[in-house]
Amino acid sequence: MLIIAHGGAGAKRPTKKALKKLEESLQAGFKILKDGGSALKAVVEAIDILEDSGLFNAGSGGNLQLDGKRRLDASLMEGRTLKAGAVIGLQGFRNPIRAAEVIMDSPHRILTNEGARVIARAHGLKRLPPPDHADLERLRRKIKKGAALDAYKKYFSTVGAVALDKGGNVAAGSSTGGVSTMLPGRVGDTPIIGAGVYADLNTAVSCTGKGEEIIRVALAKEVSMNMKRKGPEAAGEESLKKVLGLGGDAGLIALDSAGRFTIAHTTGAMASGYAREGGIIVRQGFRVIK
Amino acid sequence: MLIIAHGGAGAKRPTKKALKKLEESLQAGFKILKDGGSALKAVVEAIDILEDSGLFNAGSGGNLQLDGKRRLDASLMEGRTLKAGAVIGLQGFRNPIRAAEVIMDSPHRILTNEGARVIARAHGLKRLPPPDHADLERLRRKIKKGAALDAYKKYFSTVGAVALDKGGNVAAGSSTGGVSTMLPGRVGDTPIIGAGVYADLNTAVSCTGKGEEIIRVALAKEVSMNMKRKGPEAAGEESLKKVLGLGGDAGLIALDSAGRFTIAHTTGAMASGYAREGGIIVRQGFRVIK
Repeated sequence: MLIIAHGGAGAKRPTKKALKKLEESLQAGFKILKDGGSALKAVVEAIDILEDSGLFNAGSGGNLQLDGKRRLDASLMEGRTLKAGAVIGLQGFRNPIRAAEVIMDSPHRILTNEGARVIARAHGLKRLPPPDHADLERLRRKIKKGAALDAYKKYFSTVGAVALDKGGNVAAGSSTGGVSTMLPGRVGDTPIIGAGVYADLNTAVSCTGKGEEIIRVALAKEVSMNMKRKGPEAAGEESLKKVLGLGGDAGLIALDSAGRFTIAHTTGAMASGYAREGGIIVRQGFRVIK
Repeated sequence: MLIIAHGGAGAKRPTKKALKKLEESLQAGFKILKDGGSALKAVVEAIDILEDSGLFNAGSGGNLQLDGKRRLDASLMEGRTLKAGAVIGLQGFRNPIRAAEVIMDSPHRILTNEGARVIARAHGLKRLPPPDHADLERLRRKIKKGAALDAYKKYFSTVGAVALDKGGNVAAGSSTGGVSTMLPGRVGDTPIIGAGVYADLNTAVSCTGKGEEIIRVALAKEVSMNMKRKGPEAAGEESLKKVLGLGGDAGLIALDSAGRFTIAHTTGAMASGYAREGGIIVRQGFRVIK
């Protein structure tokens, strides 16, 4: 049993509050595993807590896009069944990971906007109130400071988790509010199965960072395929170097069904940690790849 | 120099008209290659012709979703540069592949709806008039006949192309109108880089079929990675069997920079063909995988 979670790769050091919340999320996820729950349930629960905290760029803490709206993306995959679900541009609901979970069991794999909202409403997911005056004021200040131009140079606290349960099953998930002050409709790697998230019988991978380069590498699928031969550490390092070579930055968490894992990032920091029988470890970062 | 194109994997045999149009598209794409143009330009031109024909489920022939709207998806990738662009749910424009081409050179990789429309408008892409009375009447009849329930069992004439140019560069593209009478916002594999399309320095892959299972396998990326060791034919067969194992159906075209290629499908037919120095071959199908 093992669960790994991250709060996004970035240049900035994560706050103590964010690390504390990450620990709480790992604790809740690990409890599910200990109680015999599935890796999938543990991943959803861990991400749900991070989404609800408002401390990360996900769920109620999601960035505003240029038009003052929060559009949330998430994806989720279970290894053994290859079941997968993703949601793009969900508005008005706070837990896109729960929407992805519902979609996973539907005939669909990916739903955007209207489609996603219909599903979220029907399944009684928790609502997210529209941004308030203070949120919009902060957005305006960001835009005035030229933050829109810098948005692609910064990194953002997308969240993600991977887990291995008692039965040896693995799962991976990811959730984000996208890039701040960005063109409405821009999609990063998070809801792209194969880029932001991938899981199969023996491997689970969740990525974060500059989505554009992660998509070009199809990072999660590449690491998932390579780690079978090379192990998570070498596979992760090789693919992260590829992202660096494209001018991008990224981080990833990956584990296999034997319990081997890696937490690696090209950025200075990535709030992340893991929980297993021996306890919980949470840090500002783990393995920096250059 | 080699270009391969397809008009979708399906149970139904393609019409003579569709095969004729496919030949025309291959001819136009190959002419670009012969004149020293890039694989990328050849792929875009070939797909553009299929989109404009109205004979395939792409561009002006795109299926209507349940709310009577055409939402078009496409993606495009160049191998050498790993440049990639995709558009999801483009409305009011007939050539999503041209939108993907514009996005490829922008800081974005994937744009949906509003974002996509803004770009298409700014770049003067060709408009697509809204569905007329006859289109909507056909949609109503389909829904009455219960076609909405069957939509996931049928296959659809998504189009795609891969090419290898004089300089040894490869590219891949894909374009679709999605599943007929489907929930608005449903996204298949076509605009998902790694699922519907992938290209790298030595390989280019474009997929078609039931998008939901193609996404679960991250089919294009998997074939791209495996064909380096196994060659296109064995790699394509292995991954198509995986899609079959998930209850899906799919087809793919793949080539490598040495000019080896495969055209394979799990369905009875896949309008497809290729053009090279020796001439053009277009058929109702090639290699059936069971």
